[in-house]
Amino acid sequence: MTPEEFRRHGRQVVDWIADYLAGIESHPVMSQVKPGEIRRALPSAPPERGEPFESVLSDLERLLLPGITHWQHPGFFAYFPSNASGPAILGDLLSSGLGVQGMLWVTSPACTELETVVVDWLAELLGLPGHFRTDAAGGGVIQDSASSACLVALLAALHRAGDGRVTEEGITRRYALYVSSQTHSSLERAARIAGLGAAGVRLVDVDPRTLAMDPAHLRTLLDRDRADGIVPAMVCATVGTTSTTAVDPVPEIGAVCRERGVWLHVDAAYAGVATVCPELRWLNDGVAEYADSYATNPHKWLLTNFDCGVLWTADRGPLLAALSSLPEYLRNAATSAGSVIDYRDWQVPLGRRFRALKLWSVIRWYGAEGLRAHIRQGVGLAQELAGWIAADPGFEPHEPHPLGLVCFRPRWPGLDAREADRATMRLLELLNASGSMYLTHTRIGDRAVLRMAIGGAATERRHVEQAWERIRTEHAALSRTLPGH
Amino acid sequence: MTPEEFRRHGRQVVDWIADYLAGIESHPVMSQVKPGEIRRALPSAPPERGEPFESVLSDLERLLLPGITHWQHPGFFAYFPSNASGPAILGDLLSSGLGVQGMLWVTSPACTELETVVVDWLAELLGLPGHFRTDAAGGGVIQDSASSACLVALLAALHRAGDGRVTEEGITRRYALYVSSQTHSSLERAARIAGLGAAGVRLVDVDPRTLAMDPAHLRTLLDRDRADGIVPAMVCATVGTTSTTAVDPVPEIGAVCRERGVWLHVDAAYAGVATVCPELRWLNDGVAEYADSYATNPHKWLLTNFDCGVLWTADRGPLLAALSSLPEYLRNAATSAGSVIDYRDWQVPLGRRFRALKLWSVIRWYGAEGLRAHIRQGVGLAQELAGWIAADPGFEPHEPHPLGLVCFRPRWPGLDAREADRATMRLLELLNASGSMYLTHTRIGDRAVLRMAIGGAATERRHVEQAWERIRTEHAALSRTLPGH
Ligand SMILES: Cc1ncc(COP(=O)(O)O)c(C=O)c1O
Ligand SMILES: Cc1ncc(COP(=O)(O)O)c(C=O)c1O
Repeated sequence: MTPEEFRRHGRQVVDWIADYLAGIESHPVMSQVKPGEIRRALPSAPPERGEPFESVLSDLERLLLPGITHWQHPGFFAYFPSNASGPAILGDLLSSGLGVQGMLWVTSPACTELETVVVDWLAELLGLPGHFRTDAAGGGVIQDSASSACLVALLAALHRAGDGRVTEEGITRRYALYVSSQTHSSLERAARIAGLGAAGVRLVDVDPRTLAMDPAHLRTLLDRDRADGIVPAMVCATVGTTSTTAVDPVPEIGAVCRERGVWLHVDAAYAGVATVCPELRWLNDGVAEYADSYATNPHKWLLTNFDCGVLWTADRGPLLAALSSLPEYLRNAATSAGSVIDYRDWQVPLGRRFRALKLWSVIRWYGAEGLRAHIRQGVGLAQELAGWIAADPGFEPHEPHPLGLVCFRPRWPGLDAREADRATMRLLELLNASGSMYLTHTRIGDRAVLRMAIGGAATERRHVEQAWERIRTEHAALSRTLPGH
Repeated sequence: MTPEEFRRHGRQVVDWIADYLAGIESHPVMSQVKPGEIRRALPSAPPERGEPFESVLSDLERLLLPGITHWQHPGFFAYFPSNASGPAILGDLLSSGLGVQGMLWVTSPACTELETVVVDWLAELLGLPGHFRTDAAGGGVIQDSASSACLVALLAALHRAGDGRVTEEGITRRYALYVSSQTHSSLERAARIAGLGAAGVRLVDVDPRTLAMDPAHLRTLLDRDRADGIVPAMVCATVGTTSTTAVDPVPEIGAVCRERGVWLHVDAAYAGVATVCPELRWLNDGVAEYADSYATNPHKWLLTNFDCGVLWTADRGPLLAALSSLPEYLRNAATSAGSVIDYRDWQVPLGRRFRALKLWSVIRWYGAEGLRAHIRQGVGLAQELAGWIAADPGFEPHEPHPLGLVCFRPRWPGLDAREADRATMRLLELLNASGSMYLTHTRIGDRAVLRMAIGGAATERRHVEQAWERIRTEHAALSRTLPGH
């Protein structure tokens, strides 16, 4: 494709996206297709001859769009938001257009240096400690995801816990990772990937009401393992759990880790970016004092489209020791002089996209002010919604709900717990099938609850109001069809 | 940013990229900045207020561009190509614009099903075996990189080698990975990440001329380890090594793996996509019969911009067993019914971009025909170049060079090996500092050689001719300054 063809088709694509975003509410939020439907609509063999770009666009519109669940729809309340914003999309487009691969400083110095600048900026915006900055002993790096960030943290932690032996000799004794039942599943996966196995994962108790990790139980488990000759490698505290945004007590957990000499990783994948607002800075409590590594995802709630997670470490030494390697074909003067950062040593893959461009573009377009306004909008709407839920006798909100997620249980008078949970799941299905919203569920204390995560870039008060109205109506209608009525 | 603002700035960005690509030859290929130069030019603190998008674009142009090494420049001959093409950039833009996250089928069915279709298409285009197809026992998946692909393959192999124990119990005995000195460094890293340690990696001998792995030595190493109670987990054969595009004898290596019951991963990161040309199908020899997993990168030489690697497996069972997990908040009817693919179980991270769009867009725009023409252009120019080198008494080409990479050693009469290598590296510096080309180096038989990888989307015959002319001239000029003249 020549540059002029690119210009022409590029404009078509930009227009297509602008129209898509402007008209996004005309689509059902959640795709209603059946398994296999999209695949069967597509040719099973690749084309022999090239086709005009217009065919790609028209097939996207005609064949693929029905199979899309619209994450940017203002009625998308499932999982956590995965904000795409104009400046992020355009920053990413610039990255694709430049087509540079930033594995080493020398393969595009600006790719590395802009990344250093933006992760330092973000640390400042979030009030993270100075020792996370690149000029200090630590440093930040953009990862594709919080999952990869926690794997990298675990590798660094294992390196430190084993005095370098893990990197050299592998897992030759037993190491353990400490999480809670509320910790994201990527931690258990990281343990499996790193050779600890599912058996190397300890589940620390949580407070049954707040679902926050119990530091005393953590201490007990650490001591039990040490007594059994098992080396504690890493504790993961979560600030804003996936299920309910529970906040583990980082200061108390950190103190235990410090006493016992164990690496503390703080997973703030969703909630971390919210600390751009001073009134939410308490989410950072204990991080400056105790965290060896910390991760949050601009690709969730900070208007930077997937993929963009940031991992910081207080000491880059073990991380680099765990992941560096330097074959001849990557040697170069700058690396040998030790005067530059080669971010490929900070991650699992070798190659790297120029992801810093999109985060830079987002921070500049919105400014600290705009980012705060976005977070406040989500938190504000969620608090309003929680108020409506609490005031409605048909529903019970889960407390606390400090951020943009509200979990709540519809009440089904006359049904036992199992029947009620089935009714809740049936209500969820009906709501999602309506096309006007997409919610997901979780379980709290073994009861099914609905999760409504607010924070989409396009979500306004009216969308939350309409969704709540529909939830109430469907709940009432479904209640009437149940036994006892 | 509103949809209308996006439309306006989107056009600016498209124009910027079109102009950038049209004028790319006006830039020095390799950035000439010093460490820290770009960083110092950028503000050390993030903006409090949002800024107009035009500031981002003008800073990109003014501050960042000098720090960019232009991977899409026709004079970029370093490493391997990392092709960006119009349809890939636009496919990626569509992915950013849609902003869907395809971790599960249910989170956007089209994201999963288009991926299934395109990886099956690509398998067909490359003549890969039917059992790699999704309808069979295997299946393909898009990964961010070949590094991640080999890690995933190793995890599956470990699962199989340990009868599931690695996933459950972790690394509780010694496992080994077999590579050669020419294998990509990501394999050694995968072994370290997976808990085998550097000590779990065995270096199989290579033929000193072709640098291809020696199957007899592989058998010896496997048997020695077994005798020592070490479990062979995986053998990695490379088709097209990073250093010189050596091709390991997959049929012979495969036969050894089969006899010994060891997982065979074939790393064809660079060369695999070349088999879109029937005359290069011999690169697949042994893959259908023996490969348990196979990876190649459309993001290198197949016009699909970074990141896009594809991993296929002959049996998805161990891969899924090694990587699946299903917390409550991800449960859904389609997953529970087992009727869909959830690609997050096929990779290290949880979240996923809609990467299939760019590969789909590329295959449709170019068609099989266009893809073949692109590969043939790279191979053809490389063969011409190799002919010029062989005909020139000042240089010595490394044989064989079946693909787009030519390695060669400048001759420096009168210098001993160490001095000559220093002169070669000095020549490399001069060439790269000229701004007209970017080459890298490697070592063969402990001698420094230059690598010239042809295959950029914009590289034409004249660029290769000019580069060669300059190499000869600089070599002659440098020779004249050396002792003995
Ligand atoms: C607390 C927490 N950690 C980690 C993750 C994983 O994020 P990613 O998709 O970036 O791997 C999530 C995703 O929801 C999360 O909520
Ligand atoms: C043979 C081989 N394997 C693996 C890789 C790593 O590729 P990626 O950057 O996709 O991880 C390369 C990169 O050059 C390669 O040449």
